[in-house]
Amino acid sequence: MEKTVKICMTGFGNVGVRFARMLLEQERQLADEYGCRVIVTGVCTRTRGTVINPEGLDLGALLIMKEELGRFDSEYPGFAPDCGAPEMIERCGADIFIELSTLSVKDGEPASGYIRAALEHDMHVITANKGPEAWRYAELKALADERGKRYLFETAVLDGAPLFNMARSCLRGCEITGIRGILNTTTNFILGEMEKGGTYDEAVAEAQRRQFAEADPSMDVDGWDGAAKICALANVLMNAGATPDAVKVTSLRGITFGELKAARTQGFRLKYICSAERAADGALRLTVAPSLVPLDSPEALVNGTSNIITIRTDMMGELSIIEKDPEIKQTAYGVYSDLLSIISGERE
Amino acid sequence: MEKTVKICMTGFGNVGVRFARMLLEQERQLADEYGCRVIVTGVCTRTRGTVINPEGLDLGALLIMKEELGRFDSEYPGFAPDCGAPEMIERCGADIFIELSTLSVKDGEPASGYIRAALEHDMHVITANKGPEAWRYAELKALADERGKRYLFETAVLDGAPLFNMARSCLRGCEITGIRGILNTTTNFILGEMEKGGTYDEAVAEAQRRQFAEADPSMDVDGWDGAAKICALANVLMNAGATPDAVKVTSLRGITFGELKAARTQGFRLKYICSAERAADGALRLTVAPSLVPLDSPEALVNGTSNIITIRTDMMGELSIIEKDPEIKQTAYGVYSDLLSIISGERE
Repeated sequence: MEKTVKICMTGFGNVGVRFARMLLEQERQLADEYGCRVIVTGVCTRTRGTVINPEGLDLGALLIMKEELGRFDSEYPGFAPDCGAPEMIERCGADIFIELSTLSVKDGEPASGYIRAALEHDMHVITANKGPEAWRYAELKALADERGKRYLFETAVLDGAPLFNMARSCLRGCEITGIRGILNTTTNFILGEMEKGGTYDEAVAEAQRRQFAEADPSMDVDGWDGAAKICALANVLMNAGATPDAVKVTSLRGITFGELKAARTQGFRLKYICSAERAADGALRLTVAPSLVPLDSPEALVNGTSNIITIRTDMMGELSIIEKDPEIKQTAYGVYSDLLSIISGERE
Repeated sequence: MEKTVKICMTGFGNVGVRFARMLLEQERQLADEYGCRVIVTGVCTRTRGTVINPEGLDLGALLIMKEELGRFDSEYPGFAPDCGAPEMIERCGADIFIELSTLSVKDGEPASGYIRAALEHDMHVITANKGPEAWRYAELKALADERGKRYLFETAVLDGAPLFNMARSCLRGCEITGIRGILNTTTNFILGEMEKGGTYDEAVAEAQRRQFAEADPSMDVDGWDGAAKICALANVLMNAGATPDAVKVTSLRGITFGELKAARTQGFRLKYICSAERAADGALRLTVAPSLVPLDSPEALVNGTSNIITIRTDMMGELSIIEKDPEIKQTAYGVYSDLLSIISGERE
């Protein structure tokens, strides 16, 4: 017998659209393998309008509107003018809230507030944002547990690569004692460009031209993005109870070609490494800093948009995961994989 | 309320002993986090005797006997002379059968027969052997499903690194389209030694001296071990329905220092690569062969006892997992992690 799962979403940009297409592409898989029909009852955006229908929206039609008009048509049945995420959550009757709103690394809002509202309306939550895990993890997780709901965020770090899900389902019983990795694509690209002989400014400009960097690159090059990611990882996997302002961050600005060249001469590459290490006294040290990595280490090989993360555990030793050249599809898959975890009734 | 889980084991060598110690070390974790007490009701060995007590054996005493006598004391209550695995399974009343018997790569026996017997006695099964997955996966999995029992084998490839469990729990909905990796430690060590300038025979002798190779190294250097591993992976993750004799194997014998040196001059290293690739026509090609890997690929960095596996999927792109310098503890952890999957009531 087929069950129906109702989802609502906030955000319908690149990831939201790719996820919506994935839902349509996987309709058959959802029915055949999971006995499940997924319908979308609300989509809320900041600038492209909001649509709500507790009986189910026509996802194909929403995708066409987005493509042709760049926004939802105000004539479309269910168009809800001036309706924000909290109101959509209240009205759409969904079982699962999918939070893909614009990033808010500096305080985790408005994503955290939306997530709280959805949990209070007894929805499971999936977010692609690292902000909530970096700033409010303990509070949101406690609320989710209290309500008996899932709060999942595989996409928050390393796109869809199974990181949080792996630690939860596959490293049972292990204590995670250290995490480190190359978690920010923009800065890794900038370092790669500089190694070819360019200046820092030239490398940033090239990253901007290729759309790897924002007009204001400070979130990446000043380590904010990395700080939020390592903090989210440490909160979830090491029970850190930290916030990103506790991360010791060294900006990438000021790095020179000379330093990169000298590193290589000595058998190293300079990489922008995020790390969470438990010191001998039990204190957790969170850092984001340009760091020397040996040329024969896997970290030295990570170029372009690829990522690497290494997890050290008490019982399972040290594992590294390399995600090669991820694209938007992998980000969307992370959200989809969280959805399947919920649909399949996975227990924690 | 605490539940009691009864397990029995066949095999009490290095892995069995390390696993037994882990059970004692984690007793508190099992009680506090899983509300569970694990007792061992049978241990069957080929040359060290068999002990059975449906009420629970004293695991500490068994470990001491093993250490002091090298075998179970025939005076020990529950000592069962001439009792093999099938009889132990029948008499010990366990919920879970842990199969750690001596490897049998060439036909998957006697492990497969033991596993069948345990499933028929309505036990969940955990095996550290790749033989059953390589030779009889479809049959054993069908029997397990029919009986509503778990059949887990995380340790069969890459020790305890979460490979099978990751694909099952964390790559939901993905089709796995290719697998490749360095899966055999002995041959990787031999190649590393030869690169220092030695002959093949010298490298094999050094591997034997360091106990990385058997007196007869043919299982490793003629690719049998690799063939069983890639076949097990392909059967479980790609639904191959293959047996190891279908794997196209090229022996490592005959490799020369000259070839390794030439490879490096051209920007490659020679590695013994196992792979499962689906061809354009849908056919699955399983191979084990010395292969050139680019010096700037993660595979080129894998030395010593470390392993790497790369999984290619339709939705999640390409992921590599590197297991660094695993020891016997990681093998035991793989068994323990399967045990926790069962105890936590994980659903597939």
